[in-house]
Amino acid sequence: MKVATVSIAGERRVGEVSADGQSIAPFDLPVAEADDGVLALIRRAGETVPTHSPISLSEVQLEAPIPLPKRNVFCVGKNYHDHAHEFARSGFDSSAASGAVPAHPIIFSKVPQSVVANGADVIVDPSVTQAVDYEAELAVIIGKGGRGIRAEDAFDHVWGYTIVNDVTARDLQGRYSQWLIGKSQDTFCPMGPFAVTRDEIDIADTEISCTVNGELRQQSNTRLLIFDIPTIIETISAGVTLEPGDVIATGTPAGVGIGFDPPKYLKSGDVVRVEIAGIGVLENTIVDRRP
Amino acid sequence: MKVATVSIAGERRVGEVSADGQSIAPFDLPVAEADDGVLALIRRAGETVPTHSPISLSEVQLEAPIPLPKRNVFCVGKNYHDHAHEFARSGFDSSAASGAVPAHPIIFSKVPQSVVANGADVIVDPSVTQAVDYEAELAVIIGKGGRGIRAEDAFDHVWGYTIVNDVTARDLQGRYSQWLIGKSQDTFCPMGPFAVTRDEIDIADTEISCTVNGELRQQSNTRLLIFDIPTIIETISAGVTLEPGDVIATGTPAGVGIGFDPPKYLKSGDVVRVEIAGIGVLENTIVDRRP
Repeated sequence: MKVATVSIAGERRVGEVSADGQSIAPFDLPVAEADDGVLALIRRAGETVPTHSPISLSEVQLEAPIPLPKRNVFCVGKNYHDHAHEFARSGFDSSAASGAVPAHPIIFSKVPQSVVANGADVIVDPSVTQAVDYEAELAVIIGKGGRGIRAEDAFDHVWGYTIVNDVTARDLQGRYSQWLIGKSQDTFCPMGPFAVTRDEIDIADTEISCTVNGELRQQSNTRLLIFDIPTIIETISAGVTLEPGDVIATGTPAGVGIGFDPPKYLKSGDVVRVEIAGIGVLENTIVDRRP
Repeated sequence: MKVATVSIAGERRVGEVSADGQSIAPFDLPVAEADDGVLALIRRAGETVPTHSPISLSEVQLEAPIPLPKRNVFCVGKNYHDHAHEFARSGFDSSAASGAVPAHPIIFSKVPQSVVANGADVIVDPSVTQAVDYEAELAVIIGKGGRGIRAEDAFDHVWGYTIVNDVTARDLQGRYSQWLIGKSQDTFCPMGPFAVTRDEIDIADTEISCTVNGELRQQSNTRLLIFDIPTIIETISAGVTLEPGDVIATGTPAGVGIGFDPPKYLKSGDVVRVEIAGIGVLENTIVDRRP
């Protein structure tokens, strides 16, 4: 099932997207529940929630699948070999893990309020950062929470997947040593366009790519993750109880802006387009704006 | 004003604590609002919220001032000179900032669900971590949100203060390079016992101390912060909009367990007592428990 969170006449709704991707059938959920986006559906797990008549997606405003997560988005750093090497070479790696390829997953977070929808502007204040970069990532959406989840049981806790562009201010990422600030700038977490349940895609073999103004920058496959999804879930949940609706961005492959010499930072007007087979295309435009 | 969040007959209430610290006068707030603890009061800024008759604090269950923050707790690392040096010497510093004393604030986070009240157990699973440490910290509670807050205006955005024990799994902090996991273990963020409005204490000159089983381990003063509260608020809010109810733990002075040789890690039964003049005493017991 492919799901979208949308705004219809100013009211947030969650609905099932049709096979042709043209329409959405809103679930019959109270407004207060639908406000949490896909999380509303996760909370109704096991129930059959009836749907209303389909509406054309062109008539509604798309929102992020989970517009405001209940806590920071978990993210995994340096989780593709080729990206780990380009990052180590770039001079921006403040993670201090010995060697380019980490021996353990590097886990950090982005604040919930950094989440924006497909189509939203990524707003950059040039007086705050001069080194904004894109990172195409597959994101896991947790269904059933839990602690001490073993890798072999991990997929029982996965509701599904979406796309995240882990937009990063490289200068801030380096300056503050821990990555929270460089990763959490307002609007720096485009998410969407849709979420899909875990049965929709073969997560061990899914294509991921990213273009900037039509130029192919990143092209990889989830089979090349250093730490796979079960390992990430086992690692976090060992002592941190995972919650329904948690979002975990799994890391980006090679081809980010700082992988080039000189770096190809994003500039105002650039259109970043992240595509993951079976989920869709997440497209956002960079806009410079001093507040 | 000194404020506590408490549970009375299973219902969460926020109230003003009497001058002698013996009783609490609950504010007349709807249950759904009071559920957010002190944040409910912050949202009513400018209003005079009437109170009910005082109840003895001995008859109620104390909760953390903000029992479940709306996003991760912001924390500052290595923010006292003497602690920055002991941490650099310890070999656990994965922050990669050059030199012991950071040139810029190091900002990371703890998940909201790690927050527990004064008196609650800090539960440690010895199969997950063998190196649990305490960190006595003054925490700022944001009142008015904002972005691009200048240092000279920062205190306009401070509602008040509380105490946080930034409990840390040193082995996980080092292993995962970014600090989120080592800092976010379930129950690893004792907060309280009370919150005070900013007029209650002279934040530029406030004593902070920590004992373990009665042995004095940390004793310092907020005037020794490397990056003061206005600088921290200016740094975060430059591009990350601060929200009402955000909690920012400002860092810990010297004397943590890894400052000793050999390290003095916490063990089951240890009682950690953090005191900040004008706020109170935050006391929690370490309990080993395999799930």
